[in-house]
Amino acid sequence: MNDPRPLGIFDSGIGGLTVLAELRRRFPGEHFIYLGDTARLPYGTKSPETVARYALAAGRFLLARQIKLLVVACNTASALALGALRAALPVPVVGVVEPGARAAAAATRGRVGVIGTESTIASSAYVRAVEAHCQGVRVLTRACPLFVPLAEEGWFDHPVTRQVADIYLTDLAAAGIDTLILGCTHYPLLRHAIAAAVGPDVTLIDSAAAVAEEVDGELSRGRLGGDGRGRLELLVTDAASRFARIASFILGDPLPAPLALVDL
Amino acid sequence: MNDPRPLGIFDSGIGGLTVLAELRRRFPGEHFIYLGDTARLPYGTKSPETVARYALAAGRFLLARQIKLLVVACNTASALALGALRAALPVPVVGVVEPGARAAAAATRGRVGVIGTESTIASSAYVRAVEAHCQGVRVLTRACPLFVPLAEEGWFDHPVTRQVADIYLTDLAAAGIDTLILGCTHYPLLRHAIAAAVGPDVTLIDSAAAVAEEVDGELSRGRLGGDGRGRLELLVTDAASRFARIASFILGDPLPAPLALVDL
Repeated sequence: MNDPRPLGIFDSGIGGLTVLAELRRRFPGEHFIYLGDTARLPYGTKSPETVARYALAAGRFLLARQIKLLVVACNTASALALGALRAALPVPVVGVVEPGARAAAAATRGRVGVIGTESTIASSAYVRAVEAHCQGVRVLTRACPLFVPLAEEGWFDHPVTRQVADIYLTDLAAAGIDTLILGCTHYPLLRHAIAAAVGPDVTLIDSAAAVAEEVDGELSRGRLGGDGRGRLELLVTDAASRFARIASFILGDPLPAPLALVDL
Repeated sequence: MNDPRPLGIFDSGIGGLTVLAELRRRFPGEHFIYLGDTARLPYGTKSPETVARYALAAGRFLLARQIKLLVVACNTASALALGALRAALPVPVVGVVEPGARAAAAATRGRVGVIGTESTIASSAYVRAVEAHCQGVRVLTRACPLFVPLAEEGWFDHPVTRQVADIYLTDLAAAGIDTLILGCTHYPLLRHAIAAAVGPDVTLIDSAAAVAEEVDGELSRGRLGGDGRGRLELLVTDAASRFARIASFILGDPLPAPLALVDL
């Protein structure tokens, strides 16, 4: 296995960096190109047609950069555009919904909660995916629109964030979920506030680890493993200083690569 | 005065509907075309270059619809792209920054606060505009990134909104501002929570009324008054159900016109 082509990782913005961080830990010898579509974020409040159009533009852009595999590190795009991306791109495409659902199905004792953006929850993609892996499971969902702005404000474990988490999650906790899928790549940043709201007996599923498993499988299956020279490119469609600040929370300060501005 | 051409009103999304509502009250015989660029909102976290590019596309789209005047009912676009719009469009262009600053300069006893999105505040457009109208005034600013998502969640006077308002506004209140510019068209929806945070002695400036004054002046000056047949078109670039829900808060339920999807 010695395929020097890069892995492409795509998100509407910043949240996917939590997946990038996990992939870099797991595959230090790979070349990663991260593309954050920051000029058009967020996707989570937009319609399925618009999300699919944006995701295809991003996928084609990365394909032109000779990627060997695409990770869609955005729950909304995974929920709404994975089929379109797989049909359009001649490389393996890994989303975050399927690996997260599989991990939840393996962990649950029967009651799974799913939280995400309005679009992700409205798509029911997680519900279908969990049910496909786990007969008789009960899946309860809740959209949490303020979690992304709270994460982007840097209020990871702030009293306001704890209060919002209590409001959003009270019904799921009362319904007795035993497993909770963090169905948005921003949400691991709020892990402590979310855990406090649902209590210590609920297993939190962060799809980053599950995605890394699936990427590992694809690299082995396709004999796509890299050349051992780890590299990183960080591309954004809008260079607002906000992105750099939040990226530093996730990847460390200073950033491991400069932010480059690109136009889709 | 009998010019049947429509007035164009443009916002990144939903907030500008507070300006539209005021203009319809004031000019019931005019034909309004409202364009919300919901596929690319929010503008407030994006760079000046990107905001100017989006605003020009929206302005040209409305010009092709034969508008006689453009209202930029978005503080971020007014702060960052008004010059570019005026240079590119052959009709009067009214922003929200200048009228709001003028109203604040008329109201203040010496200390003005300005709140808005990160991009609006970073642009310093309000500070320059207030200072130009009012010698020796002191202007203090604060970005309030969570106010737009809180308004869009419908938590207008919610305990969480009150707490966030206290956190954001404590420094402005302590600095003794006597006037506060609501420098984002979403913020009038949070008026009660904002007023509670700064106290009853602070005058809140909502630019909608000031914008209506300026539009009145432009219509008179250019003899552009309408034909008395009030009409309304609501155009959006993305038809997420979210927009319809929040639009109903502002314009009433059912909406006074259907939402039509357009592509810029």
